[in-house]
Amino acid sequence: MADIENAFITLPAGFKANGVSAGLKDNGALDLGLVVSDLPCTVSGVYTSNLVKGHSLVRTINLINTGKKVRGIVVNTRVANAGVGKDGVSDADKIASAVAESLGVSSEEILTGSTGTIGVRLPVDKITAAVPGLVEGLSTQEQAAHNAALAIMTTDTVPKEAGATITMSDGREVSIAAIAKGSGMIHPNLATMISVFTTDADIDGKLLDGILHRAVSHTFNRVSVDGDTSVCDMVIVLANGKSGVTVEDGSEDAKLFEEAMTKISEDIARMIASDGEGATKFIEVEVFGASNDKDALNIVTAVARSPLVKTAIFGEDANIGRILTAVGYSGAKFDPEKIDITVNGMLFFRDGVCVPFDEDEAAKLLAEHDIHIVIKLSEGEAYDRMFTCDFSYDYVKINGSYRT
Amino acid sequence: MADIENAFITLPAGFKANGVSAGLKDNGALDLGLVVSDLPCTVSGVYTSNLVKGHSLVRTINLINTGKKVRGIVVNTRVANAGVGKDGVSDADKIASAVAESLGVSSEEILTGSTGTIGVRLPVDKITAAVPGLVEGLSTQEQAAHNAALAIMTTDTVPKEAGATITMSDGREVSIAAIAKGSGMIHPNLATMISVFTTDADIDGKLLDGILHRAVSHTFNRVSVDGDTSVCDMVIVLANGKSGVTVEDGSEDAKLFEEAMTKISEDIARMIASDGEGATKFIEVEVFGASNDKDALNIVTAVARSPLVKTAIFGEDANIGRILTAVGYSGAKFDPEKIDITVNGMLFFRDGVCVPFDEDEAAKLLAEHDIHIVIKLSEGEAYDRMFTCDFSYDYVKINGSYRT
Repeated sequence: MADIENAFITLPAGFKANGVSAGLKDNGALDLGLVVSDLPCTVSGVYTSNLVKGHSLVRTINLINTGKKVRGIVVNTRVANAGVGKDGVSDADKIASAVAESLGVSSEEILTGSTGTIGVRLPVDKITAAVPGLVEGLSTQEQAAHNAALAIMTTDTVPKEAGATITMSDGREVSIAAIAKGSGMIHPNLATMISVFTTDADIDGKLLDGILHRAVSHTFNRVSVDGDTSVCDMVIVLANGKSGVTVEDGSEDAKLFEEAMTKISEDIARMIASDGEGATKFIEVEVFGASNDKDALNIVTAVARSPLVKTAIFGEDANIGRILTAVGYSGAKFDPEKIDITVNGMLFFRDGVCVPFDEDEAAKLLAEHDIHIVIKLSEGEAYDRMFTCDFSYDYVKINGSYRT
Repeated sequence: MADIENAFITLPAGFKANGVSAGLKDNGALDLGLVVSDLPCTVSGVYTSNLVKGHSLVRTINLINTGKKVRGIVVNTRVANAGVGKDGVSDADKIASAVAESLGVSSEEILTGSTGTIGVRLPVDKITAAVPGLVEGLSTQEQAAHNAALAIMTTDTVPKEAGATITMSDGREVSIAAIAKGSGMIHPNLATMISVFTTDADIDGKLLDGILHRAVSHTFNRVSVDGDTSVCDMVIVLANGKSGVTVEDGSEDAKLFEEAMTKISEDIARMIASDGEGATKFIEVEVFGASNDKDALNIVTAVARSPLVKTAIFGEDANIGRILTAVGYSGAKFDPEKIDITVNGMLFFRDGVCVPFDEDEAAKLLAEHDIHIVIKLSEGEAYDRMFTCDFSYDYVKINGSYRT
């Protein structure tokens, strides 16, 4: 597998993309993105576990559940198209129809995604007016592909793009690429609002479903920015088969393909955590030796979610007792006299007791951008990890006036 | 029951209190508090559910579990006496012994509480040096009692004191009073770090236990500041019987006594939420019509804990979709098309659909200090509520540099 630097969503053969401004964002920034395939695509999706779901997302879930092939997905930002009732359903239909008409395909072949404020109607006229330009600019070129990644951003400060080309067992190549938006209201399950994957592999829908779910489980579903799980989350994979390479269930190629999907998912998950709202630090929390998987997940979740841990890291304050506290209230069973806590290689707690440490050395470690918390228990073999970021003044600023 | 304005912890007969500076806080503020009774007290406690527990707290739990009567409790701030191993146990013993010696009682009659930074040794010498002055100044007077409330504060901006005098069925009076400290690392169970109740009722330990647990369950255990449950939390009741009034299980007096305990607990719980770290708003979240108690609790917890809801309220931004979102991911089962959300009397969502609202009117409502969120479902009869506060820049500031 070759990681592609500066990978674009159009890396896999047969995909085009574009992003334009439909005037939803005040500043004229890109806010409407489109990814389409020349060929019909097998499609698989993973969606938010929030009981409340946005109307654009519900439409996409219903279409994917029919098992029919699709051609692409159109995503707008600024308005979530959620909590507005039946109007929200017809608004999403109108946008998909406008895109489908411009492309000369059926509206059922165009999936929809929306992200932004809840309880506000989509400005359908503005969006449909922008569709002809959006479709006309579709291209395999880097700039157009990059525009799609830019157009789905909300409070993200950088676009999220990743991709890889895999050499299969017979020497032929398959590519996978992804774009995603973070960056707030992020917590398992699901961890990001919207991510779109493309691949030119020829792959059965059921196999693709399995690979996607496994790839997401320890990557996208291990990112927490603020503990809030949004109503619009989805990860969608479009597989158009254009490489001519068929990925068979149980084959070596399926393994290679899954490895690449997982790697790209992890790359994107790390990007989302790094670019969490107001983030100044990337934080990785790992636990070893928990008694079972549930305890391991509870521990990394409690630590990654703790506002006290996150503000201490923002302040570069070695208040490591807060990590011990979070592990203690996580609900996991463990012996508090057998816990070690290491941060960026420095041991702060051994067997539950604070190790005297040099404040200057600790300050130097905590000044780093990447903070790596390792918790070791002696209960069993279970392991888990989570990606998050610190909690800064800017998180409060961004979210105290999100709508305005 | 007569609520006492400006009630002090020495309101019940036979209690004295005091607070002094032992030099633990840099600025010379009070940091060592003591509450003692002339007579031996029946004692009952509720403690943090955190698996990691501070050494001063563990000592208190062990003493209470013996069932023996006690004389009082000494509490220090700034250092939590947690995560320091066996030294922490002997440090707490030394402080209790110093207090006991000054009072002429046994050290097992003096409970201990500590709150502050984890992983740091208590400065025992400083504390024991301050004990003679602490004991000498013990008094029933308001100033001394008030000093005890001041001395247990950490990042609290105001002391928490409440009390009531109850006229029993035979016309005799019993008093109850309480002090508490908040104000961060607060989430059920338990919601406050340390609270001490006094009463001059004569009451059996088992009955007192039951009343305390019930009083705490919907008051202290319904406060969330930041979702973090500390390792030092306790609520302790000292009952010295000096009023001569015996409260019998199953009596009308027991009911009156429990009502007063619950009312005082609620008053203190509201004070703690109002004075949450960096708080500019008090928030009460109520849910009606949930299908069962667990769902009702999950809903108010999710909303009260959501950083997105709390920052929106800080910013006075009517982003009510975030409340809908939090209810949706709470884990509770409900029909998203049958949810109404009202904030300070204004209906924002009816049957899951956003009601068009006047931004100016919404801004006026959200400018109020007290924010009252009411969520109505149509699933059943279950009700719950939670007290919290908003999330401000100051929360980040306070917690980014707590140790310094």
